[in-house]
Amino acid sequence: MSFKEGEHVLILYKDRKYLKRLVKGLHLSVRGHAISFQDILGKQEGQKIGEFFVLKPSLEDILLLGFKRGTQVIYPKDAFYTAFKLDIRHTDRVLEFGTGSGAMTAVLSLLAGEVWTYEVSERFYKIALKNWETFGLCSNVKAFNMNFADAPLEDEFFDACLVDVKEPWEYLEKVWRVLKRGKTCAFVIPTTNQVSRLLSSMANLFTDLEVLEMLQRHYKTNPERLRPEDQMPAHTAYLLFGRKRI
Amino acid sequence: MSFKEGEHVLILYKDRKYLKRLVKGLHLSVRGHAISFQDILGKQEGQKIGEFFVLKPSLEDILLLGFKRGTQVIYPKDAFYTAFKLDIRHTDRVLEFGTGSGAMTAVLSLLAGEVWTYEVSERFYKIALKNWETFGLCSNVKAFNMNFADAPLEDEFFDACLVDVKEPWEYLEKVWRVLKRGKTCAFVIPTTNQVSRLLSSMANLFTDLEVLEMLQRHYKTNPERLRPEDQMPAHTAYLLFGRKRI
Amino acid sequence: MSFKEGEHVLILYKDRKYLKRLVKGLHLSVRGHAISFQDILGKQEGQKIGEFFVLKPSLEDILLLGFKRGTQVIYPKDAFYTAFKLDIRHTDRVLEFGTGSGAMTAVLSLLAGEVWTYEVSERFYKIALKNWETFGLCSNVKAFNMNFADAPLEDEFFDACLVDVKEPWEYLEKVWRVLKRGKTCAFVIPTTNQVSRLLSSMANLFTDLEVLEMLQRHYKTNPERLRPEDQMPAHTAYLLFGRKRI
Amino acid sequence: MSFKEGEHVLILYKDRKYLKRLVKGLHLSVRGHAISFQDILGKQEGQKIGEFFVLKPSLEDILLLGFKRGTQVIYPKDAFYTAFKLDIRHTDRVLEFGTGSGAMTAVLSLLAGEVWTYEVSERFYKIALKNWETFGLCSNVKAFNMNFADAPLEDEFFDACLVDVKEPWEYLEKVWRVLKRGKTCAFVIPTTNQVSRLLSSMANLFTDLEVLEMLQRHYKTNPERLRPEDQMPAHTAYLLFGRKRI
Repeated sequence: MSFKEGEHVLILYKDRKYLKRLVKGLHLSVRGHAISFQDILGKQEGQKIGEFFVLKPSLEDILLLGFKRGTQVIYPKDAFYTAFKLDIRHTDRVLEFGTGSGAMTAVLSLLAGEVWTYEVSERFYKIALKNWETFGLCSNVKAFNMNFADAPLEDEFFDACLVDVKEPWEYLEKVWRVLKRGKTCAFVIPTTNQVSRLLSSMANLFTDLEVLEMLQRHYKTNPERLRPEDQMPAHTAYLLFGRKRI
Repeated sequence: MSFKEGEHVLILYKDRKYLKRLVKGLHLSVRGHAISFQDILGKQEGQKIGEFFVLKPSLEDILLLGFKRGTQVIYPKDAFYTAFKLDIRHTDRVLEFGTGSGAMTAVLSLLAGEVWTYEVSERFYKIALKNWETFGLCSNVKAFNMNFADAPLEDEFFDACLVDVKEPWEYLEKVWRVLKRGKTCAFVIPTTNQVSRLLSSMANLFTDLEVLEMLQRHYKTNPERLRPEDQMPAHTAYLLFGRKRI
Repeated sequence: MSFKEGEHVLILYKDRKYLKRLVKGLHLSVRGHAISFQDILGKQEGQKIGEFFVLKPSLEDILLLGFKRGTQVIYPKDAFYTAFKLDIRHTDRVLEFGTGSGAMTAVLSLLAGEVWTYEVSERFYKIALKNWETFGLCSNVKAFNMNFADAPLEDEFFDACLVDVKEPWEYLEKVWRVLKRGKTCAFVIPTTNQVSRLLSSMANLFTDLEVLEMLQRHYKTNPERLRPEDQMPAHTAYLLFGRKRI
Repeated sequence: MSFKEGEHVLILYKDRKYLKRLVKGLHLSVRGHAISFQDILGKQEGQKIGEFFVLKPSLEDILLLGFKRGTQVIYPKDAFYTAFKLDIRHTDRVLEFGTGSGAMTAVLSLLAGEVWTYEVSERFYKIALKNWETFGLCSNVKAFNMNFADAPLEDEFFDACLVDVKEPWEYLEKVWRVLKRGKTCAFVIPTTNQVSRLLSSMANLFTDLEVLEMLQRHYKTNPERLRPEDQMPAHTAYLLFGRKRI
């Protein structure tokens, strides 16, 4: 499909990527090479224009390069694994507690029937709404700008749950209550101290506890000199999982 | 929901997991503790029976514990990341080349509109069909027991592609041809020699090349003595990604 | 040099290693292949005898295969890094607190002028002495079977210090006292909870604090199919370092 | 011991480290805080001066912060492990082929009786000599600015060998020849292609082949919020080891 004005484009220049909105009159300059956005209109995905390739941004591109960040955005390596680990089907209703910038919501919404997401900060709530609108994501998401503790929710209402807040242990009983029996809850946690504290709190409410971290190592793509990149992220978050016991 | 005869159950005993089909008269014995399958019928997900918890197996449980393996099954850590990386939407048609035991197919089918999967080995083809049938998966999958090279496929037919075969470079032009412009192809590759060879072959057909590995490290879940497990998988596969250039 | 009776030999059979003492009349059988120790006498290091290679065991071989273990032996990957990190010179006097099986002592003794090592358990103390005697190590080591808290030691007596005990924070002030100004102390710690507790205790006594872990990944050595081993150790210990502040 | 003019000092400011030579009249400024070198003279190691700590630089500090680099300096995580792996005793003669900036030489020289090191590049040779002189290292090292291929060396002359050059396979037979029977040779290699090529060449000359990589992950030292650093080195080198077979 060809690029139209107002759409987003991923522009590659060697190892660099730029996510831009196609507005006439603008251009991108990289190291002495320039590409005019006017020239991208009508071009095909995957086409080469001078030194540049033009592509439709993938969900990963959008999360990494396109989303405005009110807070730390969850990494694709963590988000993609976690979403599947929640074992969601297209008819499922999923709870997200801690919308943040809405990145995890966008991933969950691709697997779920609907996602209900709660965010107490008005600033983050607005950033998330804006992010989804900008990239046409999350049409099956109900977002609430409220404290999860105050949310009027039926018992055993959700098929899966994702919690990404600072003090998850304070809301653990409510999370447990609104989750269906045996279903999975995931937690995204930055420090070992929080992991220990959360594990202690979970023991009587959840079973099949798992704590893990995902590490992703990229390689340079020169086939004659194959080797890993020089640097990699050493830590983003610990991921915790448990299933509701009764 | 309560367990019924003929269903699958995940039985937890401390850190151990067993995936079983509920057949009357059978039971599971672990270290001197026994659970009769008769006693599980009618019980709720997440319920404790003696020393055991009973749960519905998740997709990850099914892939790791339930699938018969004709060949190496792709690991969830790799499959879950790869599936999202392919940037699949519910209306998309996805190609899988190399069905194997059907594990990756099951993951792709949750994100895609439909999956077309090709497997040349009759043995693997039958194992995959059986695996899906056993666990009620892959209703949107078309499986072909044929050589991908012989498959009569239109150009630019697929929105994404996953290749997991020994010599992917031999089929690269056809893979490129049946993929839509700019769309992503993923490769699952065990050795660095194959990575080098594939990268060389891809350079003129694909752009935005990425090579990476996913490492997953589990922790022991004792909150007073938090530490990683003693052992972890050091390697399953290198993951390669590229987008069709034109 | 040629092998003599009573010496230790490292016998390789493909990827397997065996550390044996050369006693006449004995032999080693591996998968249907046998090597008589009689036949090794007089042979050269590096020589091939049937399907086997015979070598002098290195320090790493001795620590991994030869040392009797009363407790967890420190891994070479951790021991080798830590020993150099202590910045020891041949004229230095090094303190080890927690002799254990004597593996770390053997590593330290190669860099130091002398090592003073303390072990409260009589069983471990005897195992360590026996290990060193068996392999002719640690001639510059003074080993004490006593509680470090009771050791009559001058202030600022040691040039470096290695602590490998369960509750290092209880001895921290004494460790600090016997160490020379600005010199390094290393700690070997298995859990994150202990790391947190030790860091809290160290803050006023030590500066230049570091916490790290060493991960070692082996590869299969087939040049046509280069790839990492399937499994690797995921965790042995966290290593902490600090320098005495005044 | 107290600091004297002309000596090197490691200055800590929070998480930052600076290695400086104490020259009167100079000072260090970090984020609005300044320390005059005059004020450090006569101070003790480990002492706090304003916001700064002053310490004697360790070998690791010197390699990371003090050595001039003509080429990539080997990382301490790799150098420290490799040096011990060579199984060197104080009476041993060690060969280094590829002096580079002299970092590995400095590590080897602490374990060996003497190190003979060869460097073909005059520029690197001079950098290495200068590095050792600056920090008072390597008094037991014989450095040669010549092509290793031309070095007049007796057979079975060295107890261990370290090779860090671009095309080690070209010199493999000579390396093998000058090494004593059964002794260890280590190679430092950046790419998988080189690893494959070197492994192929080694098969008939060496046994007990090992390929591995060392990964080091640092943690932030806040005990209340223990977590790994955000970034880590993903790759420095593959380490290969083999023992001379006959």
